[in-house]
Amino acid sequence: MKLATLKDGSRDGQLVVVARDLKTACIADGIAPTLQRALDDWNFIAPQLGELYDRLNAGRAVNSFEFESQNCMAPLPRAFQWADGSSYVNHVELVRKARNAEMPDSFWHDPLMYQGGSDDFIGPCDDIVMCSAEWGIDFESEIAVITGDVPMGVKVQHAGEAIRLLMLVNDVSLRNLIPAELAKGFGFLQSKPATSFSPVAVTPDELGDAWKDGKVHLPLRSSWNGNLVGQPNAGVDMVFSFPQLITHLCKTRNVRAGSIVGSGTVSNKDAAKGYSCIAEKRALEMIATGEPLTPFMQYGDSIKIEMLDKNGKSIFGAIDQSVVEADGV
Amino acid sequence: MKLATLKDGSRDGQLVVVARDLKTACIADGIAPTLQRALDDWNFIAPQLGELYDRLNAGRAVNSFEFESQNCMAPLPRAFQWADGSSYVNHVELVRKARNAEMPDSFWHDPLMYQGGSDDFIGPCDDIVMCSAEWGIDFESEIAVITGDVPMGVKVQHAGEAIRLLMLVNDVSLRNLIPAELAKGFGFLQSKPATSFSPVAVTPDELGDAWKDGKVHLPLRSSWNGNLVGQPNAGVDMVFSFPQLITHLCKTRNVRAGSIVGSGTVSNKDAAKGYSCIAEKRALEMIATGEPLTPFMQYGDSIKIEMLDKNGKSIFGAIDQSVVEADGV
Repeated sequence: MKLATLKDGSRDGQLVVVARDLKTACIADGIAPTLQRALDDWNFIAPQLGELYDRLNAGRAVNSFEFESQNCMAPLPRAFQWADGSSYVNHVELVRKARNAEMPDSFWHDPLMYQGGSDDFIGPCDDIVMCSAEWGIDFESEIAVITGDVPMGVKVQHAGEAIRLLMLVNDVSLRNLIPAELAKGFGFLQSKPATSFSPVAVTPDELGDAWKDGKVHLPLRSSWNGNLVGQPNAGVDMVFSFPQLITHLCKTRNVRAGSIVGSGTVSNKDAAKGYSCIAEKRALEMIATGEPLTPFMQYGDSIKIEMLDKNGKSIFGAIDQSVVEADGV
Repeated sequence: MKLATLKDGSRDGQLVVVARDLKTACIADGIAPTLQRALDDWNFIAPQLGELYDRLNAGRAVNSFEFESQNCMAPLPRAFQWADGSSYVNHVELVRKARNAEMPDSFWHDPLMYQGGSDDFIGPCDDIVMCSAEWGIDFESEIAVITGDVPMGVKVQHAGEAIRLLMLVNDVSLRNLIPAELAKGFGFLQSKPATSFSPVAVTPDELGDAWKDGKVHLPLRSSWNGNLVGQPNAGVDMVFSFPQLITHLCKTRNVRAGSIVGSGTVSNKDAAKGYSCIAEKRALEMIATGEPLTPFMQYGDSIKIEMLDKNGKSIFGAIDQSVVEADGV
């Protein structure tokens, strides 16, 4: 099943069911007005959405219309939780190595995870609006899951059962604000502006064989200003699976329906697979030449993030955003 | 105006208007079913709630009933944002001094703030359920505001206009998990379990003269196992006002209606005012004797947090919780 949220002027948007080929959609209003509402009562609502999805795919849905990513908000335009892991430890090690910092060995068995802001997500084709290009604007291509309710202390073998939907993420980061902010010790705040998500969220079964062991075994494609700069396989070098990340988050508290848990920037040890964020490219340059050569994103730059299935079809639709300067700066 | 959310079996509870004396309440269902809904359209909804509040205070509200804190959820049982500052820099300096760590001078002009989990708040009288008493369970008595929409880059002189409501907070902390978690560099996650809030949220005008310069000029009373252990004045030694904290949060992103921004643990330089968290007491002991003497909270311990007006009347109702062991640990 594929779900999206259309812009309708409201804060939570309009839930729609989207056909597998992403060409048509159908309003789910008679079933659930918003995705959060569906997640709040998933076991009752999901089968009804699933029936509509089947009719839509069969060309039998009444009042279906053309689906356009440009009209999408994030599947959850605002969420009660956004916790982002750092599962591709290779990425962390590279970035640290570039600044001559040792990575603690514990990072290989104790996940890094930060609590992100979730009140103001932006849509897949919305502009990345910034007050300064000096902040070091970077994209981060990731995968995220949306959970149901998960009890405190959940065991890893049960955590996977709570995964309701998957999405792609652009976890925009302000690299030049990060060092001073992390040095204060309280984690990211100003250095993580509004996050964007793929047009559609999909149930795990949509991934077929590619969804295995709580990981997505497909390349995640990032194109910066139209050039493909990364296609690492999200199933390779992911040290912590999504169930492990959820278990980490649930150690001391309950996690409630509609929580979003991210994978962190997708990265393979094989450098030929390219990069999912500019910081990693710069880290490689730093290690090779002693200085970073590639600048961060500038006003007017674009970033496209997409994942194709084995037949070359887009699974989630594409995140496709441009960086623009805020009015009145 | 005073607002609360009653337990009704739903995730967001039932919005009620509460009389100024906290003795009676009235369902606001014809106006807005939940507090988030009221915040989403505050300029339209608040005047209607205000009229009901006036009728309730005058004893003319239809279907009013006895108000009981035990039936309350947090005013926002789940929220789209919870960002907690550390405005009482004295507290930060003390805790650091106890472990022989210098506090950077920048902490006096650049606020510390962390992004907290907001998907699973607990009510004012709900148990603090923990899987281990070895985690170093501590209370933290604070004040928080709930905001409306605030645009990215807001100036401090406008940030105060976005403050809709105030609450008390128990920002429960797991002290023995904090050092290792902060050392990882990504901020608090497991060391900050579910947060609880006062029974009612109040509009700033309810504080009268005590609301001045974006600070609450009244003592915040913390009683641990029935003993008053702290009554620092929240208006004293608050280095960053609420408008300054909101401005900090908005530097790189929009903040949306229903965001909660906290003051951090209230603390006065005058040690005679006592403490709002055990960590501070232990820091003072460490500085005086070389070792912390007071243990953290144990199963069965209680914590009561309250603020009285100049006539000795409770403004927000009391947070009054006990620590209990999770089932099946």
